[in-house]
Amino acid sequence: MSDKIKVILDCDTGSDDAVAICTALLSPEKLDVLGICTVNGNRPVPNTTENTLRVKDLLGSDVPVIRGCYCPMVKSLDPRREVLETAHSAKGEDGKEITYHAEYLDCLPPSHSKPLPMHAVTWLIDTLMNSEEKITVVPVGPLTNIAMALRLEPRIAEHIEQFVIMGGGHLERNSTAAAEFNIWVDPEAAQIVFESGVKIVLMPLDATHRAYLTPEDSKYFRSLGTKLGDFIAQEIDDRVEAYNLLQPLHIPDIAPMHDALCVAYLLDPSVITDIRHVRVDVDFSGGLCDGETVVDTRLIPPVKPKNCYLCMNTDSDKFASMLRDILSRAKN
Amino acid sequence: MSDKIKVILDCDTGSDDAVAICTALLSPEKLDVLGICTVNGNRPVPNTTENTLRVKDLLGSDVPVIRGCYCPMVKSLDPRREVLETAHSAKGEDGKEITYHAEYLDCLPPSHSKPLPMHAVTWLIDTLMNSEEKITVVPVGPLTNIAMALRLEPRIAEHIEQFVIMGGGHLERNSTAAAEFNIWVDPEAAQIVFESGVKIVLMPLDATHRAYLTPEDSKYFRSLGTKLGDFIAQEIDDRVEAYNLLQPLHIPDIAPMHDALCVAYLLDPSVITDIRHVRVDVDFSGGLCDGETVVDTRLIPPVKPKNCYLCMNTDSDKFASMLRDILSRAKN
Amino acid sequence: MSDKIKVILDCDTGSDDAVAICTALLSPEKLDVLGICTVNGNRPVPNTTENTLRVKDLLGSDVPVIRGCYCPMVKSLDPRREVLETAHSAKGEDGKEITYHAEYLDCLPPSHSKPLPMHAVTWLIDTLMNSEEKITVVPVGPLTNIAMALRLEPRIAEHIEQFVIMGGGHLERNSTAAAEFNIWVDPEAAQIVFESGVKIVLMPLDATHRAYLTPEDSKYFRSLGTKLGDFIAQEIDDRVEAYNLLQPLHIPDIAPMHDALCVAYLLDPSVITDIRHVRVDVDFSGGLCDGETVVDTRLIPPVKPKNCYLCMNTDSDKFASMLRDILSRAKN
Amino acid sequence: MSDKIKVILDCDTGSDDAVAICTALLSPEKLDVLGICTVNGNRPVPNTTENTLRVKDLLGSDVPVIRGCYCPMVKSLDPRREVLETAHSAKGEDGKEITYHAEYLDCLPPSHSKPLPMHAVTWLIDTLMNSEEKITVVPVGPLTNIAMALRLEPRIAEHIEQFVIMGGGHLERNSTAAAEFNIWVDPEAAQIVFESGVKIVLMPLDATHRAYLTPEDSKYFRSLGTKLGDFIAQEIDDRVEAYNLLQPLHIPDIAPMHDALCVAYLLDPSVITDIRHVRVDVDFSGGLCDGETVVDTRLIPPVKPKNCYLCMNTDSDKFASMLRDILSRAKN
Repeated sequence: MSDKIKVILDCDTGSDDAVAICTALLSPEKLDVLGICTVNGNRPVPNTTENTLRVKDLLGSDVPVIRGCYCPMVKSLDPRREVLETAHSAKGEDGKEITYHAEYLDCLPPSHSKPLPMHAVTWLIDTLMNSEEKITVVPVGPLTNIAMALRLEPRIAEHIEQFVIMGGGHLERNSTAAAEFNIWVDPEAAQIVFESGVKIVLMPLDATHRAYLTPEDSKYFRSLGTKLGDFIAQEIDDRVEAYNLLQPLHIPDIAPMHDALCVAYLLDPSVITDIRHVRVDVDFSGGLCDGETVVDTRLIPPVKPKNCYLCMNTDSDKFASMLRDILSRAKN
Repeated sequence: MSDKIKVILDCDTGSDDAVAICTALLSPEKLDVLGICTVNGNRPVPNTTENTLRVKDLLGSDVPVIRGCYCPMVKSLDPRREVLETAHSAKGEDGKEITYHAEYLDCLPPSHSKPLPMHAVTWLIDTLMNSEEKITVVPVGPLTNIAMALRLEPRIAEHIEQFVIMGGGHLERNSTAAAEFNIWVDPEAAQIVFESGVKIVLMPLDATHRAYLTPEDSKYFRSLGTKLGDFIAQEIDDRVEAYNLLQPLHIPDIAPMHDALCVAYLLDPSVITDIRHVRVDVDFSGGLCDGETVVDTRLIPPVKPKNCYLCMNTDSDKFASMLRDILSRAKN
Repeated sequence: MSDKIKVILDCDTGSDDAVAICTALLSPEKLDVLGICTVNGNRPVPNTTENTLRVKDLLGSDVPVIRGCYCPMVKSLDPRREVLETAHSAKGEDGKEITYHAEYLDCLPPSHSKPLPMHAVTWLIDTLMNSEEKITVVPVGPLTNIAMALRLEPRIAEHIEQFVIMGGGHLERNSTAAAEFNIWVDPEAAQIVFESGVKIVLMPLDATHRAYLTPEDSKYFRSLGTKLGDFIAQEIDDRVEAYNLLQPLHIPDIAPMHDALCVAYLLDPSVITDIRHVRVDVDFSGGLCDGETVVDTRLIPPVKPKNCYLCMNTDSDKFASMLRDILSRAKN
Repeated sequence: MSDKIKVILDCDTGSDDAVAICTALLSPEKLDVLGICTVNGNRPVPNTTENTLRVKDLLGSDVPVIRGCYCPMVKSLDPRREVLETAHSAKGEDGKEITYHAEYLDCLPPSHSKPLPMHAVTWLIDTLMNSEEKITVVPVGPLTNIAMALRLEPRIAEHIEQFVIMGGGHLERNSTAAAEFNIWVDPEAAQIVFESGVKIVLMPLDATHRAYLTPEDSKYFRSLGTKLGDFIAQEIDDRVEAYNLLQPLHIPDIAPMHDALCVAYLLDPSVITDIRHVRVDVDFSGGLCDGETVVDTRLIPPVKPKNCYLCMNTDSDKFASMLRDILSRAKN
């Protein structure tokens, strides 16, 4: 038991978040998932919470789900900062909306479980402060919950083993020419996390664009004949379509499963093939680079200490193989 | 009983905060003080908490004191925003430090009571959400606690009767040419409060510079022969010296008791002689006007709805008379 | 001759600019107008140049007109900074556009004179550097030309007697809740001027809203039977309508002639009844206060030296009387 | 004659600027250098002008040198923006200051020629507007002169064949973790240039760090027995020392000759081995990324049109070979 990694997930579910949750909950031999916090991000927090509950119900899990922050710490205060360059959705030929994250995970039935009757930030603080072992925190959405918890109770930092974060982009970006979505949504929260002193492993787009499944994987999952297999297959198909249309990548016809890479890394760190110890800070100026994760690549010693293990490449085959393996365990 | 005003104070005690607390706690016929939250501001939050406890002990009160946030929401993330133009202290002729707010209220003994074992933000949310009656919230320091609570649980807004805030300046400023200290310390928090939709009565420097006590009042309080009288007298003397030296006002030899004006207003609104319903927004650009409370004085309808009752003048005699009256009630 | 004030006007003509120009050119006993530069502001610079030439032609003057900058120094680079809160125009009952500054001064015939074949910034530098006497520069539009000239040739500062500037607002603002139009259009240029070290007399809205003509003045000017009289009457009527509709002031049915106050002040400084020596800096953060003229009203010595004579009130009767007197001199 | 490239250089000389100038002036068969403008940058403009004249005199050239802007357009207005992270100099073991750019090029005698008696911005505008052929403009310092000229006379854009600019960094930066020096000094000016519509070839650090000479080259140049050879050798030695100490690069013991790469590219474009057509915009927020050249690498069509040919790699051998060849032509 004691060799399991205690994990808290923080998600804005969302499709790839769902895959990350499934991967984590289906790895009980290695991961002890203490709870899943939800946050505003891909969708508003009522949606991301409902989506998280649907995934939990699909797996028949009793992991606690706790609803978190409904808006960024301060960014939404400034009307000048709300311009999003990236198209978030488009209409397909049949009039269907094509998007990365549907309003609800429609291929799953409405949830029958409930979130805990408390706030995710309160739950995070209580859980961390009362844990004798250090806990690994895995935020795969905007960092609002985490930063709010750090601001309210800075001593939680001593109870966190590490952050394994999906966010940012060094050479690859999506929301703007400078920024990745999760960091872009709440840059101030991100900088609070990067200044927390906790060990950070960052999965930026440079790594997560290489953590993908393909239509061939979709066929495989659909062939399993399980509800989970059908769900994963559907998510792959939807994401392939959305990326091809809205955000073409260097490899066509792939479905990056960004958030699942954090979980895969916890299960087998060798899925990451290039990792660098660097200083990262987040631009929250409200200007052109709002939300950029600035990596200091200069060879001079950084003014501020190195604070981030930046993952720059992924073993794509190993990633897909891991997900095929783990996600076929579901009996349902 | 039911005609009493239920009140929560939020303080960064500090000398004039202490006078505000005393005034509130010595007015039990009108005010039901549910608790006193503390916050980073004039001094770090460990100091403002200890100072608050000292004042509570002096009065023999059992009002709960709850420790709050230790830094602004985001301002301290940006090294460019930490420049404070105002001199905060100077050395007197005898080498003694002259300042508005001593590190600790040295004229009072160390506290023997303790703060509640929870965070002020959590306590604020719990108290407000569980109250059947609406509560008046009186923040007289930076608005960090209040904004954090609003971000975590926006529904508290429906449980707040009104905010009576010491902060901002329309024609008078102190920390910079554009900004007053409380708002300047955490401008993002302030703007969250101004956008909360709750009724706001604002006591800016324009009103609070006219809410003062004088050396004559000091003599009066010292003549009472009570510990409280001595304490108030000492605060007056210290503030007269500090203002004369560090921040001369149009009237010399006065001790503005900014925070106490909020309490005086609750007890008798006629202490304010000029009040205007306006739109106020806070600049949090990090530029020259960081922390400015911008009052839209144009006669065209504001783009955003009016959100603030701005107090622009004070009946100075009535204010001093009220404080003399109330603060002499203490037997100790 | 040598007791005349050598003057350069810098205008974004515009209706009140036109009145300022007429007042200056009809005061040859006191003012030696060396030239009129034009700038982007109320209207694009081709329009403000044509309008300036029309006024010059109306007066039969041979004063040089020189076309200047077509956009602010940098503000227009930032899409986030282009939001103007103030409505600039509206439709009247008859469908006619009501605005402060028509596209062209339609009541005047197209110009037959031409601007000098050089740039206003070059002309400013050449004229100032080659003048043996110091020259008074009167900018009544955005300060782009002046700032560009100061940046290119800082030594012009030594050749400027003083700036008499229409711009800014201390207690009164128009374009936004924080800023007056001329400064708001090019805040960086304004700050360059305020840091130039040249003596500055500033006519903010606080003074210029009290520098007005009325419908009664309109009747007077129309009764003169001159083309200039008719023109001035028309400008008064248009401005009364525009202010009543678009930007109601505390006194109804008035036509503030902002820019003309600078000229009136040069002719008789007693037209200003309240003048204060202060430090003024301009916010160019791009935030809520972009373009605000921040007056340091604190009694502590300012961090930077006082740089501005701020005019806070006007003898409205004297102003109107001066304009009646001077503008009736035209024979045409 | 007509197949020569007409060129204007714009420099903040400085050591690698000197090498660029020599390379250009010693290539008369291909380049017709119309003039060299100077600008504030590595050193104040009086120094960069004197240094430019010294280089010109060394070569016995009669090319016009014209002094330009003494400070950035607006950046120096904001005290918050003046923090430079990079150490600019250090003391060597013998107490000698080690820096990239000495105050003056001490190994050359004081100049005996003079700059033209006009401003570089005026000269740029006049030269461009009066040229029948299009001219290639090569700015290798901050872009202040160029941007000021574009603001004053936008029609010069039609007379510019292309900009070949040393500045910016995509994966490599120097002044801050986000920005290269030339762009960092005057980001607003840079963005004006990037929005000018003129064809831009950009030599960022990614290319210029591979455009270097070595101690072996130094020996070669010293062996030539010419004053120029000695000068180049000295510059190589000084830069090798400065880079090793102040800003170590991935290859040790090299002297990048950033600015000379622009000239080498004009003489033989194949010296660049990787060039990409992209959208580049400059961050001028004053925040963490102030001065960053943001390259939109996303595969979606950029919101704004592509405006830059970004050079990402250099044939280091060809570069060194070219410089050896050209710089040995000097007889003096």
